[in-house]
Formats: sequence, structure tokens, C-alpha cells
Amino acid sequence: MGTTDTPIRLKAVSSPDQPDVTPELEELYRGFEQELLVPLWTEIGDLMPAHPRSRAVPHLWTWQNLVRLADRAGHLVPVGRGGERRAIALANPSLGGRPFATPTLWAAIQYLMPGEDAPEHRHTQHAFRFIVEGSGVWTVVGGDAVPMKRGDFLPQAGWNWHAHHNATDEPMAWIDGLDIPFQYMNEAQFFEFGRDELPAEERTTPELSRSERLWGHPGLRPLGVQHGTAGSPLLAYKWEHTDRALAHQLDLEKQGYAGTVEPGHAAVRFSNPHDGSDVLPTIRAEFHRITGETAPIRETGSSVFQVFNGSGEVTVGDKTWSVTRGDLFVVPSWQPFSTRSEAGSTDSDSGALDLFRFSDSPVFEALGLHRTQLQTSEDA
Amino acid sequence: MGTTDTPIRLKAVSSPDQPDVTPELEELYRGFEQELLVPLWTEIGDLMPAHPRSRAVPHLWTWQNLVRLADRAGHLVPVGRGGERRAIALANPSLGGRPFATPTLWAAIQYLMPGEDAPEHRHTQHAFRFIVEGSGVWTVVGGDAVPMKRGDFLPQAGWNWHAHHNATDEPMAWIDGLDIPFQYMNEAQFFEFGRDELPAEERTTPELSRSERLWGHPGLRPLGVQHGTAGSPLLAYKWEHTDRALAHQLDLEKQGYAGTVEPGHAAVRFSNPHDGSDVLPTIRAEFHRITGETAPIRETGSSVFQVFNGSGEVTVGDKTWSVTRGDLFVVPSWQPFSTRSEAGSTDSDSGALDLFRFSDSPVFEALGLHRTQLQTSEDA
Amino acid sequence: MGTTDTPIRLKAVSSPDQPDVTPELEELYRGFEQELLVPLWTEIGDLMPAHPRSRAVPHLWTWQNLVRLADRAGHLVPVGRGGERRAIALANPSLGGRPFATPTLWAAIQYLMPGEDAPEHRHTQHAFRFIVEGSGVWTVVGGDAVPMKRGDFLPQAGWNWHAHHNATDEPMAWIDGLDIPFQYMNEAQFFEFGRDELPAEERTTPELSRSERLWGHPGLRPLGVQHGTAGSPLLAYKWEHTDRALAHQLDLEKQGYAGTVEPGHAAVRFSNPHDGSDVLPTIRAEFHRITGETAPIRETGSSVFQVFNGSGEVTVGDKTWSVTRGDLFVVPSWQPFSTRSEAGSTDSDSGALDLFRFSDSPVFEALGLHRTQLQTSEDA
Amino acid sequence: MGTTDTPIRLKAVSSPDQPDVTPELEELYRGFEQELLVPLWTEIGDLMPAHPRSRAVPHLWTWQNLVRLADRAGHLVPVGRGGERRAIALANPSLGGRPFATPTLWAAIQYLMPGEDAPEHRHTQHAFRFIVEGSGVWTVVGGDAVPMKRGDFLPQAGWNWHAHHNATDEPMAWIDGLDIPFQYMNEAQFFEFGRDELPAEERTTPELSRSERLWGHPGLRPLGVQHGTAGSPLLAYKWEHTDRALAHQLDLEKQGYAGTVEPGHAAVRFSNPHDGSDVLPTIRAEFHRITGETAPIRETGSSVFQVFNGSGEVTVGDKTWSVTRGDLFVVPSWQPFSTRSEAGSTDSDSGALDLFRFSDSPVFEALGLHRTQLQTSEDA
Repeated sequence: MGTTDTPIRLKAVSSPDQPDVTPELEELYRGFEQELLVPLWTEIGDLMPAHPRSRAVPHLWTWQNLVRLADRAGHLVPVGRGGERRAIALANPSLGGRPFATPTLWAAIQYLMPGEDAPEHRHTQHAFRFIVEGSGVWTVVGGDAVPMKRGDFLPQAGWNWHAHHNATDEPMAWIDGLDIPFQYMNEAQFFEFGRDELPAEERTTPELSRSERLWGHPGLRPLGVQHGTAGSPLLAYKWEHTDRALAHQLDLEKQGYAGTVEPGHAAVRFSNPHDGSDVLPTIRAEFHRITGETAPIRETGSSVFQVFNGSGEVTVGDKTWSVTRGDLFVVPSWQPFSTRSEAGSTDSDSGALDLFRFSDSPVFEALGLHRTQLQTSEDA
Repeated sequence: MGTTDTPIRLKAVSSPDQPDVTPELEELYRGFEQELLVPLWTEIGDLMPAHPRSRAVPHLWTWQNLVRLADRAGHLVPVGRGGERRAIALANPSLGGRPFATPTLWAAIQYLMPGEDAPEHRHTQHAFRFIVEGSGVWTVVGGDAVPMKRGDFLPQAGWNWHAHHNATDEPMAWIDGLDIPFQYMNEAQFFEFGRDELPAEERTTPELSRSERLWGHPGLRPLGVQHGTAGSPLLAYKWEHTDRALAHQLDLEKQGYAGTVEPGHAAVRFSNPHDGSDVLPTIRAEFHRITGETAPIRETGSSVFQVFNGSGEVTVGDKTWSVTRGDLFVVPSWQPFSTRSEAGSTDSDSGALDLFRFSDSPVFEALGLHRTQLQTSEDA
Repeated sequence: MGTTDTPIRLKAVSSPDQPDVTPELEELYRGFEQELLVPLWTEIGDLMPAHPRSRAVPHLWTWQNLVRLADRAGHLVPVGRGGERRAIALANPSLGGRPFATPTLWAAIQYLMPGEDAPEHRHTQHAFRFIVEGSGVWTVVGGDAVPMKRGDFLPQAGWNWHAHHNATDEPMAWIDGLDIPFQYMNEAQFFEFGRDELPAEERTTPELSRSERLWGHPGLRPLGVQHGTAGSPLLAYKWEHTDRALAHQLDLEKQGYAGTVEPGHAAVRFSNPHDGSDVLPTIRAEFHRITGETAPIRETGSSVFQVFNGSGEVTVGDKTWSVTRGDLFVVPSWQPFSTRSEAGSTDSDSGALDLFRFSDSPVFEALGLHRTQLQTSEDA
Repeated sequence: MGTTDTPIRLKAVSSPDQPDVTPELEELYRGFEQELLVPLWTEIGDLMPAHPRSRAVPHLWTWQNLVRLADRAGHLVPVGRGGERRAIALANPSLGGRPFATPTLWAAIQYLMPGEDAPEHRHTQHAFRFIVEGSGVWTVVGGDAVPMKRGDFLPQAGWNWHAHHNATDEPMAWIDGLDIPFQYMNEAQFFEFGRDELPAEERTTPELSRSERLWGHPGLRPLGVQHGTAGSPLLAYKWEHTDRALAHQLDLEKQGYAGTVEPGHAAVRFSNPHDGSDVLPTIRAEFHRITGETAPIRETGSSVFQVFNGSGEVTVGDKTWSVTRGDLFVVPSWQPFSTRSEAGSTDSDSGALDLFRFSDSPVFEALGLHRTQLQTSEDA
């Protein structure tokens, strides 16, 4: 009975919750291996834990290191067909060296040199860009040139054609978020190459994209355009609106009204103006402004945060870091997360810590798997 | 067999589609009357027509007349408990003298004298205010003081407490829209009196209501507040946003892009930022800017329009009127409607005709009864 | 100032909540009449009551009287084009002699003589049939012949072609329910004549319609057919299933388990197997089996009941009736309703009172206007 | 610069679509490794393919082998706390020896000896049981004892307490399907132990569960019970209904009417009677009856099939198998699937091939990632 051609390896173990190790059991296990079977009783602890135990670990990437290496790549790695993008992804240290920030989320720094273009393509993976510093690149989505500036959030639902072009003489870096690991694991991905070059009329550099002119007015729907596709038709959420919304919440709190999530903690969710849902079917994006300390919270599903402004201290599970502008960190599933802004930080007169966050929560909510727990002590 | 106590009166008629008039038929009809029965065969033409034949007729009310009489009422009619509001409703001439602009919609001018307050109450009727001129009144909704200015649209979903106070030394007029006739016909209405006077802290006159500070940012949801009730949580849609959105659509058209409803016709719908639905469960509200001529269209359900700016010509069914700022007119169910802006009108350098519109379309859409027909010739 | 051409008649009344009666006020009212305006302050008590005060009244129609007159009509009134149906509608005594059982609902007895056909037509009004006795008629919906037998419920969503044919040598009567008054008030109705005669292949008399063969299996959807239209794709809800479901609920109660609405009160709702919603967009249909007494309940919206089996006592508002098989009665909006089965009734060994009910609740629920109140004392 | 503590291993490769291999590039890659970064340009082909390329492969497990080994396990492996269940899972040969039938789905044979109980627990993983032969076991869900018999399908939405007990003196085997791999990958799982023994009143052996008595009537909702949780409230879909629904579809086809999916191919989906959705939030379950040949189809997402009756030939991607009662096989994402019933098979007089199927399609549909393609030639 040769078992050389099976990937299954079962080990009979002497343990109170395992069957007695006998020659008959060993023979049974060999039969399982041969027939490509695995019993639940040897696997249940790993597969069906009492609560999520993430394969990912909390980790911090500093912006300084990311930009340094991205700039280096700018000089060594051409952008164009094949590689498609000069994007460098965060690889969670416990996910086997794969370019996965968490089991479901991709987070990368993308870098475009002066005058460079990233060629047009489309894919089913849902994507967004978030800009922590710089400007000068336009993302062209279905012929609509969308400017990118510090603080702007640009969602891009799957299967839209898109290219980028750097219209300035400076390099520019930004963050890409996608559901690449989720779609990789679930095997849903399609990809197509687009035109090799954008026509002149799409290489414009307007201050306001067409999508913003149609959909960027609070509570107003354009009647002349249909919106049927998944994801938000609004292709840019400008920093000035986000900033103002957060400031208003803290003002309301100061005046004694409801508005913040918890004392000193303002937050907004980027939402689809068509139906109020998350901007992307698989990705939630939010902005948090913290002027004090947040209560530890844990959720099913994972998140990636980037510090947009200010400094502070962040605790995820058993890790604590000091963070500052541009730093990125991950919060694995069901790991408690809390943060504290650092008063008197130099680059933020308000002392606020501004955090951009994205997560896979829409997946969990759509499937009835979302749970949240405010945590007061170690009760895991 | 006396039929004096029955409201039924059946008349046997000699007609090809009616049963033969015989003594037996007359006896049958007397039996129906006695037993409170009415046969379909005498009623079907009225009840089940080939297409909607509205009991309402097209009609125009001029702003000048409305304001004149409202001002007169300001001096003669106190506002306060009992009457509750100094509101004067459009009464469609063919709806029996009832204060119904259409079979489902209430439209009224409301008038508040300097320093006056309209007392707090709440009702299940869904309501809004639209301001064609003036300012100085605040609507206080659940303690949130919302300013009213020319061009602003203020929805107010049913069962919210609300009062108005005029904080200036000028009278102010505006338009109220409600679903009073619809709820009257369907018998769904509840009403409650609130506090007789607003406390000082609710008599503030902020530039921006709390609701706008929370919900008035394009595509941004506040995370710290729940929204569960029917209708929009955004209590004011400011003119500057509406105006800009319409201007953008016409710009896009000029640049060769999609955006308008038809050539020269920009339009937005006021929508609930929570879920993208209509601002009110029973009332749709829109703003249209017309720079040429619109194609005749007819819809199930009825609308009321108010001219916000410019002048033009409006055709509804077999009626045609010249209209100017403030004028109100109704479009009954399935009556064709078209309009034409008047170039060179004096009060609008753009030559555009700006129309505010509200309708009962959400009722029809929710129940699968909505139909629209673009009309090219008289094919009714 | 002639007011002869206006339907408005305003009367200045001396009352604490009305403005002082002065010549100026009278002049203002003449102005309102002339300009087709009605003030809120003279109307608010009627239009915006503290709770719904139905224009309809509770009323009972006995089956014996209905059948007697319907049979008489069978001999005097031809069925066919023009009248379309030999249907005789309940006319609520306080709705002005109109054929409206309640402000929104139509209820009629329909009668077809041996061998007769009711011709094919379609309309946007949503309809159903319910059979309290007899059999032998088939309803042909889009070519699908659906049998009708005692206890069966047959929904027919708007805009489906349908005809009836009596395949036997006996006359047959049944109840039709439609939303005719609702669509009449809201002016949404379309109507079309169909073929004058059904082809032979549609005059079949199968035991089971095609719709039942596709959709009549609990929790099973056919994969090969699409269902996109409004209303249920299942065209018959057979008595055997309804009866069994009710019996099971009472059994569960006897065994100590949840299942009934209240002690001794089983109830099911006819639902759309496609999405679990009400069978018709504007009409809810239910079946209730009462073995004791029900607690008084009131709801916004109105209902019509038919006694299917047993006898009992029914109280609606301030009316109480003894009812028996076939009797029909209406419950106006917000009127408390309760019932009691009559033990030892002759035609029902179980002593249960079986009630078929239909209502306009889906309209109220879709628009956020539905309210229910269990009533323990007279607290209206 | 030691890279010993990083899991990243990047290899500069000489290739037209890769950057030139230079010492600088090597240094950059070492920097990436050190900082836990992975570039897109080395990974894009694997992560973002033109269409899904499943890590899983088509594979067939024969029922004979499964039952033989399960029975062996029945004699060697105790059931009870710790292992919880005597379940033996299909392990796709190319998924690294993990007990995953596909990247998202778990499929196992469960085996219970005479008189045995599997203890009570609950978990967020959504589950079902399908019975290809035998009877005698009751699944007790929240105190409701549900019988299991050949052909029955029993869904069990996550977080419901459940236990099994074999009330007979025969062993019984059945198939379990769960979303264990999906929840493992996405890290959403919770698990709790229940009572060690069921009380006597839950060890009953009724013919019909309480859930069936409440929810098992076509198109009828019980009014007295709420249903708010995810997944179907109907805990058993009995074979007699499934069989009849499939037979009806083939009858309709024979009579010239719509009803089947394609000629000779009847199919039903098990659906939630509360809202018509899939029985489980993450798992779709269907039954197919094939009397000829099916057209090759491919879908995003993966499926597991079990042959319930008859024999035939199945083709998945480049594999073709003869299959017979009880055999299980998997269809990976985007692999074309077709089948052919074997006329004159001995155990099925009808010559039909009956297939039970479950898949992860609800996940893909909820997230806008579902695609289907009918395939006429090899156009992958």
C-alpha cells in the first residue's frame, strides 16, 4: 500500500481527546491518506477554535523605509506591461512570505516617476488609492482623469479600466489597497490589458473629475446618469470634505451633542452615494481622528491603518508602537486594538492623531460573520 | 322594501354593454342597494380605465397672489395651538374644494411674522419646506435649529418633533409640501402636540444645523450616530450645492460628456445619504435646470412644481402657461408635461429656467405601479 | 369679486382656535376662494387627527344575501366584453355609495354560470380569488389553467392576462379582492382587453396548474425559470396546505411549543416563494384559525374578513355580530378588532372559527406607516 | 544585513517582463526582504491571472471507499467531547493535505454507531447534512429533533446549538457540508461546547420536526414566530418534495412548457422560506436530475457534487469519470463541468442521473464576484 502519491500525512497521537494509538488506527490512517481523506478529530482545534486565532500577526511598517525603497525601485524597475505597476506590498511576517498584509487584504506603496505612465488594465479585484503626501498623478478611470492629492481617497471598484499618469516633474508615492488575497483564496479573479497608451483627450489634468462633478454633492443624485455597477460611482473623496466632517464631529462633542464615536474620537466612513453602502463590495474605508485615547476593541476580520497626521501610540494584541506620519500597521482578526494621540506632537497643532483605515468588514457583514467586542480587560 | 337608509343609487341604463333594462333588473338593483352592493358592470369604465384619468386638473397659482394673501393672513390670523401653522394650501379646482393640490399631495405657502413662533408638534405626515425667497426662519427639529434660505430644501420625515421661529424683524414665506391627502385617503395619520415653547438653547440661530455637520459631506457617513428612522437624516440641502451640481452637469454636456437628462436639461434628486433612497418615504424632490426645451413626458402619479428662477413656458395636458419666479403648478397623473426656458429673461442672465419639483413617485415605485412614457405625439 | 366659478367654500367660525370673525377675515376668505386656496387652520382637525378616524364604518354582509343576489344576477346579467365580469362589490355604507369595502380595498362576489367564460383582460390592479364553497371554475393566467376549489387562495398580480371558464354544469361563486379603490385614488390604473376566446389548449382542466408544479414545493425554487415580476409566481395556495399548517400550529401549542400567535389562535400569511414578501405588492392575505378568544388589536390600514368555517362572535369598534360560513365584514383603520369562536357550532366539530383575511398592510409597511396596538382597554 | 529572520525570499530573474538583474536590483530585493515587502511585478502572474486558475484539482471519491473507512473508524474512534464528531473530510489532492474539498468548502462523511450520540455544540460555520442512504439518526437543533432519511437535506445555519443521536441499532452515514475552509481563511470562527447530554424530552424521534410543522408548507409563513437569524428556519427539506418538484419539471418539458434548465435537465435550489435567499449565507445547495447530457458550464467559485441515484459520466476540466450512487466529486473554480446520464442503468428505471450539489456561490454573489459561462468549445 504505497502512499507516496498522497499529500496527506496523518499522525496518530496519544492524547485524551484522540483515539487510542493502535496498529488498527495506524492502518486506518494509512487508508485515509491513500483515499485523500482527513478526519475532523485530528484537526478540530486548528480549524474550529473558540474564537478567531489569526495566522497573521500585528506588524508595523515605517513610511520612511517604504519611501526609501520605493524611490530606489523608481530608479531600477521600469513600469509597464507585464509588471503593470511599480507597487511594493506589505508582507505579513507570518503569512509565509506572501505579499499579504492580512489574510484578505493587500496594501502596497505605489511609486511613479516624473512623466511616467502606468498602463491601462482592469481586473475584478476591488482597489483604492490613498495619498499621504504629494500630488501630481492623475488616475484615469474609464476616460475620467481623477487628480490625487494629500488626504484624498480614490476608490476603484473591480472591472473598471484604469491607468495612471504622472503629469509633473516630481515622483509621487501613494498607498494602494486591494482585496487581492481574498480573491486569490476564493479564486474569483479576472484580468485584462487595456490600451497601451491613453489618447491625448484622456491625459488632461482637471482639478475635478467628471465623477465628482456628477456625484460629489451631498445628498444630490444626478438624474441623467445611471449607476448599476458595484462600488461607488464617486471616484474621489477629497481631503477638504473629510477634514471638515471630522472637525464638525469634535465641535459637536465640545458643544455637548452626539456626533463622535467615543469621547475625543471622530470618525467617518467613505460610502457609496448611490446606496449608502461601503465604497467597495469587499473593502471598508474609514478615517479616524483621535484626540485622546480609544477603548480597546476587537472585530472579526482584519484592518490596515496608515497614520495620516500627528503622532501617537498604538496597541494591537501584545504589540505597542509609537507611530508617526505615513506609518502603516495591521490589526489581525479578533486582536484588540487601541490608540492614543500624543499631545504636543510637532506637526499637528491640534494634537490629534489622524488615521486612515481599511478593512474587509463588508465581506463579514454580507455573510453574517461580523462581530465586534468592546474590551475592558483581557477576557479572550 | 324601503331603500331610504342606503347611500347606493343604481340606475339601469339602456346601452350595448349593459344588461337589458327590465323590471327584474330594476328589482335586482333595488336588492343591491338594500344590501349595500354595487355591481362592477356599471362602474368599470370609471374605476378601471385604459390609462389613468386624473380627477385633478392642471392648474397654475401665481406667487404674487399667494404672497399677497399670505401677508394679509399674517395680519389677521394668529399662529399657535389649534391652527398650529399659518399655512394656506393650493386646492386643485376639480378636487371638490379640498385643500389638495393633487390627489396625494399637499402644497401650501407658510408665513411667519417677525418674532413669531409656530409651536412644536409632530405627525406621521412626511413634510418638507422649500424656500423661493427670503430668510430668517429656523426650523427646530428634535432640538436642532436648521436655517432656511433661498434655494434651500429641508425634508422632515414623519413623527419628528418640529417648531419654527422667525428670528428676524421681517416676515418670511416658504412652501410646505406634505403627503396629507395620501395619508388622509389611506387613514394612517397620527398627531401629537409638543412643548408650548422652545427652551432658550433650542432658539439658537446657527449657520449650519447639527444634521448638516454630521451628514452634509459628500459620501461620508458619521460613524458615531445611528440612523434608523425613515427619511433623510440630513435636514437641509443648501442651495449652493444644488446650484453647483446643476452647473456641473451643463458644463459636462458642453464638454461633450454624459451628465444631463436630455440636451440642455440638468437635474438632481434630493436623496437620503444613509441609503441613497428618496428623502422621504412618500415624496420625491428634485431640482431641474432647463436651458432649452424638454420632451413631453408623462408618469403615473402627480407632481407640483415651483419656478425658482427664470421665466418660461410650461405645458401640462392641454394647458399652456407663461411662468416666472415663485409660480406653482400641478401635473396630474399621466398628463404630458413639457417646458421651455425663455431666453433673455430679465432676472436670470443664464436664460435658464430653474424648477423645483416634488411628486408622489416613491409610493408608485415601492408598489410596482410606476410607469413613465416619453411622448412624441398625442398618442394618449 | 364673483366666486361663482370656484369650488371652495370657506366659512369663518367663531371659535377659540379660529381667527376672529371680522369683515377683513371674510374678505380674506373670499380671496382664498377666488385664488383656489384653503387654509390649514380650518381643516387641521379633519386632516391631521390625533389618530386615524376612518371614513369607513364596520359592516357585515351575510353570505346568504350575497349568493342570492349573485345568482339572480346570473340569470339577468350577461358576462362578457364591456362589463367583463359578473362581480358585485361590497359598498361600505359611509363611503358615499362607491363600491369600496374600505378606502383602499375592493371585495366582490363573482358568479359564473355553467359553461360560461369571463373574457381575457389585464389590468394593473392587483387581485386575488378566494373560494368559500364550490368548484368547477378554472382561472387561466397567461395560458396556465388554475383550478379553484373550496379553501384555495389564488393571487394574481397586476398586468397578467387572465380569463375564467366554468367547465361544469353548475354555477360557481367566489370572492374577488383587489386594490381598485387604492389605485383609483392614486390614479395608477391601466387596463387592456385580451383575446375574445381562449384557444382549446388553454381550456384544459388540470388538477395542478403549471405554476404549482414549478413553485408549489416548500423551500424549493425552480432553477430553469426566471421570476422578475411583482407578486407571487405561485398562482394557487391549496386548502390542504393551509389547513395542515394551521393544524400543526395548534398541535405545537398543545405540546407546549411556540407556534401560535396567541393561545388558541393559529395563523399563516400567504407569501411569495420568490422572496418571502406578501403575495401581492398592495395586498396582504392571511388565514386565521381561532379556538378561543382573541385580544383586541388595532392597526393602521383596513381589512376585509370572510368566515370560512365555524361560527363565532366578532367585534369591530362598537359593533358586534354573530357570524357564520361565508359572511364578510370589514375592519376600518385603527378600529379595534376581536373575535371569539363559538364552541359546539354545528358545522365544525373542532369548534374552531376559520377566518380568511386580506388587508392593505403592504402599502403601509412599504411607506413606513404601519402601526399595530394590542388593546387591553378603551384607550383610543 | 542579515535576512535570516524574514520569511520573504525574492529571486531576481532574467525575463522580458522583469527588471534587469543587476547588483543594485539584488540589493533592492534584500531590502524588501528585510523590511517585509514583496513587489507586485514578481507576483502578478500568479495573483492576478487572466481568469481563475484554481489551486484545487478535479477529483472523485467513491462512496464504497468512504463507507468502508468510515465504518472502520466507527469501531476504532470514539465520538464525544474533543473530537466532537466522527467526521472524515475529503482532502483535495492539491491543497497541501488540508481537509479542504475546495478552497472554500468542507465535505465529510459522518458516521454514528447504534445508540451513539454526538455531543451538543455550536459554531459560526454554516453547515448542512445530506443523506444518500440510511436513516435512524435525529439531529437536535435548539431542542428540535429533526429526522434524517435518504434524500433529505438539513441545513444548519451558524451558531445554532446542535447534537445528533442514533436512535436505532444500525450505524448510519451521511454527508456534512460546511464552510470551514472559507471561515478558516477569513478567520471568522467561534465555537462553544453545549450540554454534555440531551435531556429526555429532546431525545424524541418525531416524524416531523417542529421547524417543518411551522415552515414546511409551500408559500405559507407562520405569523406567531419571528425569524431574524441568518439562514433558513426550515431545518429539513424532505426527499418527497424534492423528488416531486423535479418530476414536475420534466413533465412540463414533455408537455411543451418551460420548466427545466435545459432539455432533459431539471433542477431546484433549496431556499430560505423566510426571504427566498440561499438556505445558508455562504453555501448554496441544489438538486439536479439529468436525463440526457448537459452543456459544459463554468462558474467562479467551487462545487461539490454527490450522486444520489443513477449512473453516468461526468467531465470536469480535463478529467472524466464514470460515477454511481454515493460518489462525490469536486468542480474547482472556472473549470468546465458537464455530465451525461447513463441510459439503462440498473438501479434507476428512469435512466435519470440524480445529483446533489453544493457550492460557495452565495459568497460570490453577495460580493459581486459571480460569473457564469456556458461553454461550447475550449475557449479558456
